Amino acid sequence: MKKQKLLYEGKVKKVYETDDPAFLIVSYKDDATAQNGHKRGTIEGKGIINNKMSNLFMQELEKAGIPTHFVKELNERETLVKKVSIFPLEVIVRNLSAGSFAKRYGIAEGIPFPAATIEFSYKNDALEDPLLNTYHAVALGLCEQEEIETIKRYGFMINEELKRFWDKRGITLVDFKIEFGKDTAGRILLADEISPDTCRLWDQKTGKKLDKDRFRHDLGGVEEAYGEVMKRACGQV
Amino acid sequence: MKKQKLLYEGKVKKVYETDDPAFLIVSYKDDATAQNGHKRGTIEGKGIINNKMSNLFMQELEKAGIPTHFVKELNERETLVKKVSIFPLEVIVRNLSAGSFAKRYGIAEGIPFPAATIEFSYKNDALEDPLLNTYHAVALGLCEQEEIETIKRYGFMINEELKRFWDKRGITLVDFKIEFGKDTAGRILLADEISPDTCRLWDQKTGKKLDKDRFRHDLGGVEEAYGEVMKRACGQV
Repeated sequence: MKKQKLLYEGKVKKVYETDDPAFLIVSYKDDATAQNGHKRGTIEGKGIINNKMSNLFMQELEKAGIPTHFVKELNERETLVKKVSIFPLEVIVRNLSAGSFAKRYGIAEGIPFPAATIEFSYKNDALEDPLLNTYHAVALGLCEQEEIETIKRYGFMINEELKRFWDKRGITLVDFKIEFGKDTAGRILLADEISPDTCRLWDQKTGKKLDKDRFRHDLGGVEEAYGEVMKRACGQV
Repeated sequence: MKKQKLLYEGKVKKVYETDDPAFLIVSYKDDATAQNGHKRGTIEGKGIINNKMSNLFMQELEKAGIPTHFVKELNERETLVKKVSIFPLEVIVRNLSAGSFAKRYGIAEGIPFPAATIEFSYKNDALEDPLLNTYHAVALGLCEQEEIETIKRYGFMINEELKRFWDKRGITLVDFKIEFGKDTAGRILLADEISPDTCRLWDQKTGKKLDKDRFRHDLGGVEEAYGEVMKRACGQV
């Protein structure tokens, strides 16, 4: 499969066509953004870590019965994926209060929930990705009712798998953002990435944040945190 | 049942204790507010209309199997209701796009939905009543899972009843806000009010807004619109 023309350059990834229309090549950059693109920077080596870690998770999740877009890691920054039509929805699963949730509802970070929550936001930079519920998503024509029910089911399944994975490595999975797409056969696949860019990961002993919040809130030691998470994910602690 | 001390004065209603702790007296004012209390004014005669109309709906809805707080109309502004503990949730049911929905998702007003939507916001002035979903409501301890499921079911039932009611009177029910409470036995009751303050009502022939949007957006003819809606509700068209 050969890399062809650049299809799209996003905030943190480039996407290329291949010589087969059913597949794309994703290339991870070191660029980092936050606050809906208002804050920009670079996290050295992030692209390499996120590519490898995301591919590791996609393969683990496939084993657990969740279909994903992953096909094959091509090199340290590039991965071959199935082409899907992405639902314009950010899917966020939370186990503890943090980030926008804590701010929006006026509560402290770190409060554990009796049960995991799932929420959706409408991917739309101009509108600042507004929160919506499953009824809204259907009313706006963003997906069908059965599709969002499948996405919800996968979201909770993914949470169980990732929580267990990180728990074994001394890390609390606070929350994470995922995206889904649909292939030409209408099958719903987990797409995008799973990495410290898209998950909140807190060290269980020290409470230290080991994710993009270090960049978002200028906490320092960003590269070290990503490196630490990578080391733990690969079992080389 | 005698009116005792003022328990609470809200933006548009006063609530009094009675000599029986299981009952309250609600008194409707002519005060109007919008934009989370930033806009204030008076709609002459509104309290009388809202009291009468809300009581009419509560009785209709009871017949349709929805338990409500309504007991007895005492006079043109005052009604005896069952005392409930109000869930801090605004429940909004929508049939067409309008208001905050149209603004939040960047679409025009008046687009009909394939199916009615329901949404919840957390009643909290300081946080500006943020939207939340059923998972959030449970995670924040605002209600139990089964309670919010009951509220959702009642919300859609109420929509069917009100839509039919207004349709017969040449009015489109665009959306409405309701609130629920729980009595000491744990029974969930429809509370608060149902009126042109809390519903969007559009004349089917002219498209004219016959509700609080006339006040919100300084469209003029506010009292006339409330009067018109009242006339139609009582079948004196």
